[in-house]
Amino acid sequence: MNLHEFQQSWLSSPRRVIGMMSGTSLDGIDICLAEFSIDANGNHCFVVLDKAIYPMDQDLKEYLIHLMQDTISLEEVSHAQQRITNIHADSVLRFLQEKNIDPTSCDLVSVHGQTVWHSPPKSKSETGHTLQLLSIPALASMIGIRTIGDFRTADIALGGQGAPLVPVFDGEFLYSYTMDTIAINIGGMANITCIPKNRDLGLLAFDTGPGNILIDLAMRRFFGKQYDEGGVFAKEGKILERLWKNLCVIDFITSTPPKSTGRELFNKELLDTLLEVSFVNTFPGEDIVRTLTDFTAWSIAENIRLFANHQSRIIVTGGGAKNTTLMNRLKKELPEAVFLTCHDIGFDEDSKEALCFAYLGWRSLGGLPGNLTSVTGASTSVVLGSVSC
Amino acid sequence: MNLHEFQQSWLSSPRRVIGMMSGTSLDGIDICLAEFSIDANGNHCFVVLDKAIYPMDQDLKEYLIHLMQDTISLEEVSHAQQRITNIHADSVLRFLQEKNIDPTSCDLVSVHGQTVWHSPPKSKSETGHTLQLLSIPALASMIGIRTIGDFRTADIALGGQGAPLVPVFDGEFLYSYTMDTIAINIGGMANITCIPKNRDLGLLAFDTGPGNILIDLAMRRFFGKQYDEGGVFAKEGKILERLWKNLCVIDFITSTPPKSTGRELFNKELLDTLLEVSFVNTFPGEDIVRTLTDFTAWSIAENIRLFANHQSRIIVTGGGAKNTTLMNRLKKELPEAVFLTCHDIGFDEDSKEALCFAYLGWRSLGGLPGNLTSVTGASTSVVLGSVSC
Repeated sequence: MNLHEFQQSWLSSPRRVIGMMSGTSLDGIDICLAEFSIDANGNHCFVVLDKAIYPMDQDLKEYLIHLMQDTISLEEVSHAQQRITNIHADSVLRFLQEKNIDPTSCDLVSVHGQTVWHSPPKSKSETGHTLQLLSIPALASMIGIRTIGDFRTADIALGGQGAPLVPVFDGEFLYSYTMDTIAINIGGMANITCIPKNRDLGLLAFDTGPGNILIDLAMRRFFGKQYDEGGVFAKEGKILERLWKNLCVIDFITSTPPKSTGRELFNKELLDTLLEVSFVNTFPGEDIVRTLTDFTAWSIAENIRLFANHQSRIIVTGGGAKNTTLMNRLKKELPEAVFLTCHDIGFDEDSKEALCFAYLGWRSLGGLPGNLTSVTGASTSVVLGSVSC
Repeated sequence: MNLHEFQQSWLSSPRRVIGMMSGTSLDGIDICLAEFSIDANGNHCFVVLDKAIYPMDQDLKEYLIHLMQDTISLEEVSHAQQRITNIHADSVLRFLQEKNIDPTSCDLVSVHGQTVWHSPPKSKSETGHTLQLLSIPALASMIGIRTIGDFRTADIALGGQGAPLVPVFDGEFLYSYTMDTIAINIGGMANITCIPKNRDLGLLAFDTGPGNILIDLAMRRFFGKQYDEGGVFAKEGKILERLWKNLCVIDFITSTPPKSTGRELFNKELLDTLLEVSFVNTFPGEDIVRTLTDFTAWSIAENIRLFANHQSRIIVTGGGAKNTTLMNRLKKELPEAVFLTCHDIGFDEDSKEALCFAYLGWRSLGGLPGNLTSVTGASTSVVLGSVSC
């Protein structure tokens, strides 16, 4: 039996995979258990069996923010990797216990890891680099379940952006033959996947700019809160024109895909500078948060207007989907779109990324590539990740 | 076909594995191609088919030294990982070409990765952490051969020292039923494995302290050279008593195994401090190098006298084996030992660690654990590493 036979065998029966995602917003770890299989027509199928969100340990969150903002030692990086791995192990074990899941019924744990740096290539002639901290062998040894992770580096090594990786999921599961579909994910950053009803056209997917990151940073600064729950602070504020204008000229928003971004661009420094040059430091925090919220919605909509079909079915996932003020502005910006909820598709907005990474892990064990070259720009598609058993 | 069947199939035929090692001395990448199989008696066998040493790119070496000594950003860590991965990919491709090896004849590339931090646990109640920079999925995608790496983190996660890992090789291949055997490896750090002729006793293995690191640092400082080739600089010098005394009191040398160390302890800062407090800064460089060379030999011998049998067969590997001044002192310190060369065993001193990691990778694909709990102190033995195909 060679590897190919193993992969065929993997795909031939339903497999239970735990997916885990800890996004750049550092809010927590999303975890879900899904069963993947292939039906008689060769279509991939999934059922979400269980899910949870465990908040990030506040100490670790502060430590990671320190790591990302300050100069550090390699000891701190090594220690951070251990702490990230440990919190993932704790989350899996807690999930298994709370949901009464038999570990031996799980075929795989598929984990994103904590992105602490992401520099995609800036031109065709260079390659980027990306760093997801988490030790896969350590996690596997602590939980006793086969584990896969480090999904982005192979695509980057092949000249790709290393992101987004969700589109392979969207293309498989969100497709409609009646209408173009756009999946929007609003996490720390925001990204969209455009799935044309004409399958010959291929998928387009890219980061649109900030997701919740700027809003969260402002909530922290002005209200000492982690985020604007339901968008209630934004709702009380009004838009500050000077700040709005300085936001809208950020090059990334209107630059042509493929493109991906992260905390390297959208971070505390950028926000501080923007508030400074807009002379709005002394304005009410609600107004700042409102302006950032509406800008975030606008930047997503602007990308859709520029690079996609604004008359699409739209499905929004991620924490931002629960920010009513943001969602209202998004709907106003895209009046001809049909907004759907994820529940129609069989999952909820919180667990989508964890589910996608579960799916990516399932694909890799089956020898199926996980990157779409039309989306990431990599020279070839490739089986992603690295496995410990 | 499940994973167990795949592992059985892996072990049932001879497998060709490329092993790669880039040690803490940052001198270069050792690479070898070996074929592993199991004979009719169930004994593991190997043949080294080819080997090479490629010097580390000088720019990258300087960059890594900067990373290890200064405070840095996560961008630099991410970039360093990319550069380390790239140089490994270049080395594999160069090796295949120069040695005229068909890539499709290679079943696996097994790579150590660049250790940039190693903090083993200091007591039974805590766990350590370790960081080997190298992206396994990226390397696999660039060379098109299945790749395994990240061998140390699982052992660390299970409470072990994450080192040494060479003993599983030594125990399998260096054993003699007539005499106790000690394998000494003198790389950046030095470590020994004691293989008793009485197999019931189990192996003992640990780091003894510095290998070439202090000598190399002094060569750099006083002569602008990377290392003392053949020990000729040391040969010209004499031992400085004040420095000698300050070296011999370093706690690590005489502390009880299990123990492991690295550049966290034996580094430029330590050397600078030692030279300072010994008032030898203005003495001839040859004297400094001589003192460090003899101290290195003494520290290895002292560990053997304290914790092993000084009447053993001794096999020395690593760059230090070529330092005649160091080897002469070592032989003088251990007059009752029988010194053998590696060639008697079927490999040469340069390629042993690369060969060991090839063997560890071969074991992991076969589902065989790679850590010896008696050596690392981990709570259980475990299949090491993480695989990308």
